[in-house]
Amino acid sequence: MMQLNVNAPVKYSVYISDMVDDPNKVLLQAFKKAKKIAVVTDDVVNSLYPEYFGKSLCGRKTFYYVLPHGENNKNADNYLSLIKFLSEKGFCRDDGIIAFGGGVVGDLAGFAAATYLRGMTLVQYPTTVLSMTDSSVGGKTAIDYGGMKNIIGAFYQPKCVIITASFYATLPKREILSGYGEIIKYAFLSGGTITEKDITGVFTARLIAKCLEIKQRIVEADAFEEGQRRLLNLGHTFGHAIESLSAFTLSHGECVVKGLYLTLKASEKLYGIPRERFDAAAGLLTCKGHDISCGYDIEDIQKALYHDKKYDGEKLKFVALDEKLTPVITEITIVELINTLR
Amino acid sequence: MMQLNVNAPVKYSVYISDMVDDPNKVLLQAFKKAKKIAVVTDDVVNSLYPEYFGKSLCGRKTFYYVLPHGENNKNADNYLSLIKFLSEKGFCRDDGIIAFGGGVVGDLAGFAAATYLRGMTLVQYPTTVLSMTDSSVGGKTAIDYGGMKNIIGAFYQPKCVIITASFYATLPKREILSGYGEIIKYAFLSGGTITEKDITGVFTARLIAKCLEIKQRIVEADAFEEGQRRLLNLGHTFGHAIESLSAFTLSHGECVVKGLYLTLKASEKLYGIPRERFDAAAGLLTCKGHDISCGYDIEDIQKALYHDKKYDGEKLKFVALDEKLTPVITEITIVELINTLR
Repeated sequence: MMQLNVNAPVKYSVYISDMVDDPNKVLLQAFKKAKKIAVVTDDVVNSLYPEYFGKSLCGRKTFYYVLPHGENNKNADNYLSLIKFLSEKGFCRDDGIIAFGGGVVGDLAGFAAATYLRGMTLVQYPTTVLSMTDSSVGGKTAIDYGGMKNIIGAFYQPKCVIITASFYATLPKREILSGYGEIIKYAFLSGGTITEKDITGVFTARLIAKCLEIKQRIVEADAFEEGQRRLLNLGHTFGHAIESLSAFTLSHGECVVKGLYLTLKASEKLYGIPRERFDAAAGLLTCKGHDISCGYDIEDIQKALYHDKKYDGEKLKFVALDEKLTPVITEITIVELINTLR
Repeated sequence: MMQLNVNAPVKYSVYISDMVDDPNKVLLQAFKKAKKIAVVTDDVVNSLYPEYFGKSLCGRKTFYYVLPHGENNKNADNYLSLIKFLSEKGFCRDDGIIAFGGGVVGDLAGFAAATYLRGMTLVQYPTTVLSMTDSSVGGKTAIDYGGMKNIIGAFYQPKCVIITASFYATLPKREILSGYGEIIKYAFLSGGTITEKDITGVFTARLIAKCLEIKQRIVEADAFEEGQRRLLNLGHTFGHAIESLSAFTLSHGECVVKGLYLTLKASEKLYGIPRERFDAAAGLLTCKGHDISCGYDIEDIQKALYHDKKYDGEKLKFVALDEKLTPVITEITIVELINTLR
């Protein structure tokens, strides 16, 4: 088992292994003060791993709360239902929540843990490629509202994160492709540490650790996303626009790869990336079989960008790639950015 | 103008004056990065002080969001409406919110500021006795849900707090009585610094500062309510139970005073408070004209206590008064506590 220690405002550890390791010791440490535990999961994970932690985890009475799967369920209604569930079962603030599933479960259960009685003990227990390599670490929690992705949320650090690569075996192909969207992003941020071979090869604890080490380095320097953390947004400005245009019928990772390709094209205009390097980067984007075509009119992308969290009414904080493909944070008007794609 | 500096995890200042002082300089400092400001207030404050900050505060476009007044409006629907308002007006995370009103406005607007895009800049600008002397400082934000008070919330520190005692002049009598409920609690926590004369005398910046200094001392030692901060809960265990039984038709402060009296009676049984000291304490509770009678059956109080946030399924963390009337944190079963009142 590998262990990463994250120095967020509240310190916590990330435990990463290839195969399932008995998590009870780690969970017992995390839930020292808890008398009850709520496992929040979704219907897909629950059908594959029903009552995965049993009825009494570490001797604590364990309740299961099953969400319907999919991004469109990361909404205020389901959040409030979970709050009601915790209240009806008599959870108090020393009790614990395990977010057992993908990004949607991690975000929604994380936000519930952040806000129920102003904060409970949270353990992230990711089961998808995306949540294992990215979203379970960093302390971001959120729900969508009024068609706006992650419009409501909190920075809230888990007590620990437990990652087991072997959940990969039961993931559907599209879920895997979605997760690899973020891994490809990390390859761009890695300065060569994550290679095309890593991406086309077997999914291992080592690859997960490589992604999370990059994320950790960036998050530690900037826990509240005021500076360098914006680098993690590479590909996401266009990615979120496409995701929102697709009304969430496309997965996050699928949109991130499309967004990375638009970013590459925009960066090519802004910084003059040499042809050979551009082609190698485009090759990295498609090596796992992703569709990099945007699929939407540039005018619609433009409209969606006006709703971007990084848009301050004048300029957008946009992560571009310079002529050496090094990520750089730029400030640019939406019109200027869109014009690079015409 | 008096200035208190609070050393919460994020440091901020509290500015207290008797009469309105031009707040622009302080606000400009707080909203340095903002391009827009949302003033959240309620219909009563808005009718007394319509568009109080003008249309362009510190040169920032200023929007007003008016809530219906009263605790039963501190709910999820109004919270989500405010989020929608911020989103529709294009607020981004560098923009600001002023919570201009009493505890309901401060709690709900504070929770929106804490969670909209994972956190905006918040200024607390309290107008009621309760919010000036207590709730605007300490970083607690919350909304009610499913009949449970403050069941959803966050610890979120404001950028600053601006307090002007002269808003007192336009407060209805019942609102004043409610606020003095907390002041009387601070008198019990003050070890003699706040006297009966302070309570029956004129409402001044000095009295506000006395209350907030006590709160600050306790909060600084324990920002996330893990230990000493529980002292601030004096009178609130019974107070919240009564408030919930009244379906919020009684004000928070009215219930706190009733709760303080029940606490005094329970403490008398637990610690044997001498008669003379008991009578002096009861005198302090009624000196401002509060009704200290409970008004509910002891069995109903008992049922309500099982929903208390400080109840862990076995024992309740209860702030009692010892034989010298010094507040002490005790752990007690609900049955034991209720039996002291039979």
